Amino acid sequence: MNKTRSWWGWGNVEDAVHGVELAELTRRTSAMLPDTDLRAHEPPDPRSLDIRRPRVTVPASLAHLGSDDLVDRAAHAHGKAFRDVVRNLHGDLRNVPDVVVRPSSETEIVDILDWCSRSNIAVIAYGGGSSVVGGIEPRFDGGYAGTISMDLAALDRVLEIDRTSRAARIQAGVFGPALEDVLRPAGLTLRHFPQSFEFSTLGGWLATRAGGHFATLYTHIDDLVESMRVVTPAGISESRRLPGSGAGPSSDRLFLGSEGTLGVITEAWMRLQDRPRWRGNATVHFSDFEAAVSATRAIAQAGIFPTNCRLLDPAEAFINAGTASSGGVLVLAFESADHPVGPWLDRVVELCRDHGGTLPEPPRRTDSADAPAPTAVSDAWRSSFLRMPYQRDALAARSMIVETFETACTWDTFADLHASVRKAANDALASVDAQGVLTCRFTHVYPDGPAPYFGIYAAGRWGSTLAQWDQIKAAVSEALANAGATITHHHAVGRDHRPWYDRQRPDVFAAALRAAKGALDPAGILNPGVLVDP
Amino acid sequence: MNKTRSWWGWGNVEDAVHGVELAELTRRTSAMLPDTDLRAHEPPDPRSLDIRRPRVTVPASLAHLGSDDLVDRAAHAHGKAFRDVVRNLHGDLRNVPDVVVRPSSETEIVDILDWCSRSNIAVIAYGGGSSVVGGIEPRFDGGYAGTISMDLAALDRVLEIDRTSRAARIQAGVFGPALEDVLRPAGLTLRHFPQSFEFSTLGGWLATRAGGHFATLYTHIDDLVESMRVVTPAGISESRRLPGSGAGPSSDRLFLGSEGTLGVITEAWMRLQDRPRWRGNATVHFSDFEAAVSATRAIAQAGIFPTNCRLLDPAEAFINAGTASSGGVLVLAFESADHPVGPWLDRVVELCRDHGGTLPEPPRRTDSADAPAPTAVSDAWRSSFLRMPYQRDALAARSMIVETFETACTWDTFADLHASVRKAANDALASVDAQGVLTCRFTHVYPDGPAPYFGIYAAGRWGSTLAQWDQIKAAVSEALANAGATITHHHAVGRDHRPWYDRQRPDVFAAALRAAKGALDPAGILNPGVLVDP
Repeated sequence: MNKTRSWWGWGNVEDAVHGVELAELTRRTSAMLPDTDLRAHEPPDPRSLDIRRPRVTVPASLAHLGSDDLVDRAAHAHGKAFRDVVRNLHGDLRNVPDVVVRPSSETEIVDILDWCSRSNIAVIAYGGGSSVVGGIEPRFDGGYAGTISMDLAALDRVLEIDRTSRAARIQAGVFGPALEDVLRPAGLTLRHFPQSFEFSTLGGWLATRAGGHFATLYTHIDDLVESMRVVTPAGISESRRLPGSGAGPSSDRLFLGSEGTLGVITEAWMRLQDRPRWRGNATVHFSDFEAAVSATRAIAQAGIFPTNCRLLDPAEAFINAGTASSGGVLVLAFESADHPVGPWLDRVVELCRDHGGTLPEPPRRTDSADAPAPTAVSDAWRSSFLRMPYQRDALAARSMIVETFETACTWDTFADLHASVRKAANDALASVDAQGVLTCRFTHVYPDGPAPYFGIYAAGRWGSTLAQWDQIKAAVSEALANAGATITHHHAVGRDHRPWYDRQRPDVFAAALRAAKGALDPAGILNPGVLVDP
Repeated sequence: MNKTRSWWGWGNVEDAVHGVELAELTRRTSAMLPDTDLRAHEPPDPRSLDIRRPRVTVPASLAHLGSDDLVDRAAHAHGKAFRDVVRNLHGDLRNVPDVVVRPSSETEIVDILDWCSRSNIAVIAYGGGSSVVGGIEPRFDGGYAGTISMDLAALDRVLEIDRTSRAARIQAGVFGPALEDVLRPAGLTLRHFPQSFEFSTLGGWLATRAGGHFATLYTHIDDLVESMRVVTPAGISESRRLPGSGAGPSSDRLFLGSEGTLGVITEAWMRLQDRPRWRGNATVHFSDFEAAVSATRAIAQAGIFPTNCRLLDPAEAFINAGTASSGGVLVLAFESADHPVGPWLDRVVELCRDHGGTLPEPPRRTDSADAPAPTAVSDAWRSSFLRMPYQRDALAARSMIVETFETACTWDTFADLHASVRKAANDALASVDAQGVLTCRFTHVYPDGPAPYFGIYAAGRWGSTLAQWDQIKAAVSEALANAGATITHHHAVGRDHRPWYDRQRPDVFAAALRAAKGALDPAGILNPGVLVDP
């Protein structure tokens, strides 16, 4: 069945929250935040909105690639952050691309960039449109003649598979599920499963340094890149397929995280893995969050590298896994295509017990390619994980403020960071007169620090939730900046994080990046306003 | 005892090959290459050479940091490659820095860069001087008023240790042993042990993306960097201490591998590890090299990550470990501070047996912080490893051509690459009329490919060994380039690899790098001729 992508919210229209799920969601929300006005608001028909008429005309030679359909343009105007969804619900579409252009070859991309460079038209490379940082939104100054959204979904093929080296040459526009469908018959997988997996593309993951499946070791898509091909206005850059190199600064690392400002990623050789057969899982409860953090740190520093090592604080465990725990829940998992994972699992369970953790159920192990063995908690959590964005939309349409933000910090600073983020969030909630809670989980852990991921669930006022959220976001971003943490761990910078990014990255590096951009994008047309100004 | 660093060769004068070691070395060499003229040649006294007088005068405010001592200057003229040692032996020092300057603070570095930017004086940042690619040699055109070698050895302190996050803030000029001495009492270690460990510095490792101890997982120093501080002529760049980030392209990755062309690395927060307690070792023999490669690939793709996974081909095993084996020897090791490594070791041994490997001795395991448990072969190999550069010098002074070169490639291309390198080396040996052998080992292995490391042992003609080697090097470099492999895996580009690097790195990236250099080093004084031209 072909589903319909929502123009205003997450994913597919058919998968929106309804029925029992909706009843349960509103029941839980009301229980947590009584007296909240949860009446539903519907998005407008984009055709009814006063959307600016296209300011640019695609040249005849490329006209067949362009679309000025109003819904198409509206669907390409915003990403999928809470603030995007809320603005869509209110029909606030002041920045809409003039045309959506869908190239299906590199030659066409070159031609489009030539046209836009000549004509002073801004170009926003668009993958799945799941940015949560304003990365694909034509929101910038600079006197451009117009803006095109370059939708790369037609570059959706896996061009080569090298079974021996476990790598594949993949076009940038392929979405997660289609990619895995092609790799599965070869017994291979990219194993990059961000929450957006179904609605984001390889090119998007690379351009934003997306975070994926692994809680340890291979956390960012960066680590899975063997080589890249990028079309820039100054020419095509292609790096060699190398498992490792020390020949000068890495060219791939310049384009990873470049967010469409230096060129358009068209394809990459990606490192793959054998599909896992052996699995092990454990869910550990703690009575004290500090002890839970210490246990997680011990695991992160043990050189064991669990696939999943997700610490949920009590609020997170309750809201998203339905589990009561006074000190948090640690969800652990191992996967291997090569060997049973028993000794690995045993050791991390032992480390947890050393730190006061208890296991309501014994660890589980399975030996089968097809039957995953999640525990009840990880099962609930996984299902909740994939439904979260849909539930976020349902709540956003019911005056709730529901959004996440994430960071990374060293272990020595986490407790202070956590306290200041909590204080900043609670103060901001109070100042915008919103009842709400802050949750925290670790999505990834490193030997030298965690990547804490925070959630806000608060009762807003219809018509004000955008302003309320923006105030909360600014407050917690200040707290992150003051703590020396990063403004983003795996959701990129875009336009929303720019002020804090400007303080985070060294000025000298900004000068280097600006110069590099000047060399690769002399007309300054690529994703203006993101990362550096010309 | 304070030892004396050799001005012309590797390491310390007192540790040069002599006595029994020398007798054994010449005996083995003669056995392998009969009729070789192994008469020893002595290096000249640099004071007897016609070395250019200094062309620059250090300003009064910095004069106390400068040295124009002839031996000092001569010692900073070349790195420690075979071609450096041979040129030193022949007194061929046509490119000598005018002054050696030894700052002991960032402020002094800033002042030096200001002076040199104003006065058009080239600056070569110098760590331990162990470059094997002409990286620190003042060999370039460009009409500079002179060249200084900026020796950073006075920046040798560990400034902070964060035991919780397992990280330390370390100045760039510290040498390996001094660094480990400071970390040891805290139970920590950087565990970066390149062959040059004793004679190279943190800053040098970072600037050249050095390869270290680990055969898998954390192969390059890059992976151990938490943040960096770099003095550029345009200002100081300092990144935040972060365990992971996705905020734009990584600034650290721009400076890693920049080889002194973008700035002077002054300090870095480095990720440390607990000192290992449990160890496991195994040495596996193969009767067929192809099977040995397959076994190594299986291990690299198993997600087990041995500390050491060094495949020696039969010639390498014989020359450097004294072991006869028709298909090669795989040296495996595990280390952990957290857990016994038995299950890990058992699995890789099983994988080796699946591929026809045999174990002359059973695998060994120890549980002690102090008693390493190498097998006889790895013992012999380790000792040989540290003596190699000294033996290389002894042989270089005896008309031998002894040098290594390394690369990395994907597994699917290794067999062809190996064949073409072998053919290129053998053809080149024949064309320069030198009897010799080519050896191969894997220093590092990745899931998608190995890092093959080749050695040449050939009988040259005194007075011609430099030209002979240059011809061989050009031939094997062509073979690497034609195979799509990298010109260097962990020895950087310098001046010697530049022609092949220029073909390897994308032109578009070169344009970006050139622009970045223009922004950070507007006077173009930093290590001219390396990586990009202004």
